[in-house]
Amino acid sequence: MTPERFEKLKAILKSRQMDLTVVMENVHKPHNLAAVARSCDAVGVFETHAITEMSNLVLRPKAASGSRKWVGVKRHGSVDEAYAHLRSKGLRILCAHFDERAVDFREVDFTRPTAIVVGAELDGITEEAVSKADGSVIVPMLGMVKSLNVSVATALILYEAQRQRLERGMYDERSMDDETYHTLLFEWGYP
Amino acid sequence: MTPERFEKLKAILKSRQMDLTVVMENVHKPHNLAAVARSCDAVGVFETHAITEMSNLVLRPKAASGSRKWVGVKRHGSVDEAYAHLRSKGLRILCAHFDERAVDFREVDFTRPTAIVVGAELDGITEEAVSKADGSVIVPMLGMVKSLNVSVATALILYEAQRQRLERGMYDERSMDDETYHTLLFEWGYP
Ligand SMILES: C[S@@+](CC[C@H](N)C(=O)[O-])C[C@H]1O[C@@H](n2cnc3c(N)ncnc32)[C@H](O)[C@@H]1O
Ligand SMILES: C[S@@+](CC[C@H](N)C(=O)[O-])C[C@H]1O[C@@H](n2cnc3c(N)ncnc32)[C@H](O)[C@@H]1O
Repeated sequence: MTPERFEKLKAILKSRQMDLTVVMENVHKPHNLAAVARSCDAVGVFETHAITEMSNLVLRPKAASGSRKWVGVKRHGSVDEAYAHLRSKGLRILCAHFDERAVDFREVDFTRPTAIVVGAELDGITEEAVSKADGSVIVPMLGMVKSLNVSVATALILYEAQRQRLERGMYDERSMDDETYHTLLFEWGYP
Repeated sequence: MTPERFEKLKAILKSRQMDLTVVMENVHKPHNLAAVARSCDAVGVFETHAITEMSNLVLRPKAASGSRKWVGVKRHGSVDEAYAHLRSKGLRILCAHFDERAVDFREVDFTRPTAIVVGAELDGITEEAVSKADGSVIVPMLGMVKSLNVSVATALILYEAQRQRLERGMYDERSMDDETYHTLLFEWGYP
């Protein structure tokens, strides 16, 4: 490994946002999973979450063009299991979902520790996941169609978070703990 | 048709941005075409463009969940043909592409008449399309992966344009000519 590449790995690990994540509820289409993983890597999400009953879901498809290596996926069998885990990490849980309480994504403070839940193409997010969350967020649409592709909606919200966190200098201070940092630096550096 | 729906159709036609569009160069995957169409509808793009040698390309796939009806696609056989058409409409042509002259998408003035060119998954935008355009624009990425999914990159740029145009009140004044407006109102209203 060249010194330049080693510096790059260090810089990226340093900029990972440990308190920003995405939760995919029953999102199973490989091209959507791949697109979400790429966006997560690009805004510095360290690990994503999947709520699914499929225990053998291929969460890290090939089409992710390498992002499978750079962004982890943690599987949860139920909403309760996932939310308990996220709350134990101090994360507020917001659903990307249309309802009366939904807030425009540009008006949400994403510098706060946040997990964003997104749903599947046909069914969207389950009522259980919506009702147990802390709030909802929408991306305003000015046309005839009622929803965006799930990977598109996810990316728009994540990039708004990126914008806010860049402004706040949150990519300049490492938030990853030493152990994870050194483990990953080794794993990424010497595959 | 209910009076409410008629009002909705009128409001959406009124808000269509005749001077903002997307040009897909050799983008052929149905799920990407569908996702782009949905985002275009959501930010008020009236018509998109495709540069492709495939004359029978299915540009309006089913998965667009209705957006095929709401956003047109104009096919062009070559870069020259497409660019001549766009320039005749007074549009500046910007490629979503990484190069030395590329500007951060948040620093581009999208209230100006603009066409955004995007490329295919593997090959990206051709050299010809890049060199004949007026400039390049990038979405900054802070991770290991080198590019976003094409429908994701397109949506991020379009939503930045939406944000700027909302701020300027550009969705409040109709930019569509009378003839197109009345034709579409009839077509959408009485299918
Ligand atoms: C295709 S949409 C699901 C639409 C589904 N028919 C429904 O009624 O919820 C897939 C997921 O993308 C996210 N999504 C799509 N468009 C969105 C928007 N404009 N605002 C917020 N989230 C959106 C939501 O998480 C949604 O569950
Ligand atoms: C998957 S990318 C193509 C990557 C291709 N290997 C290349 O080298 O250009 C597909 C298209 O999405 C757009 N795109 C993807 N990520 C982008 C980014 N961060 N900034 C601007 N455009 C991007 C570009 O138009 C690109 O041609």
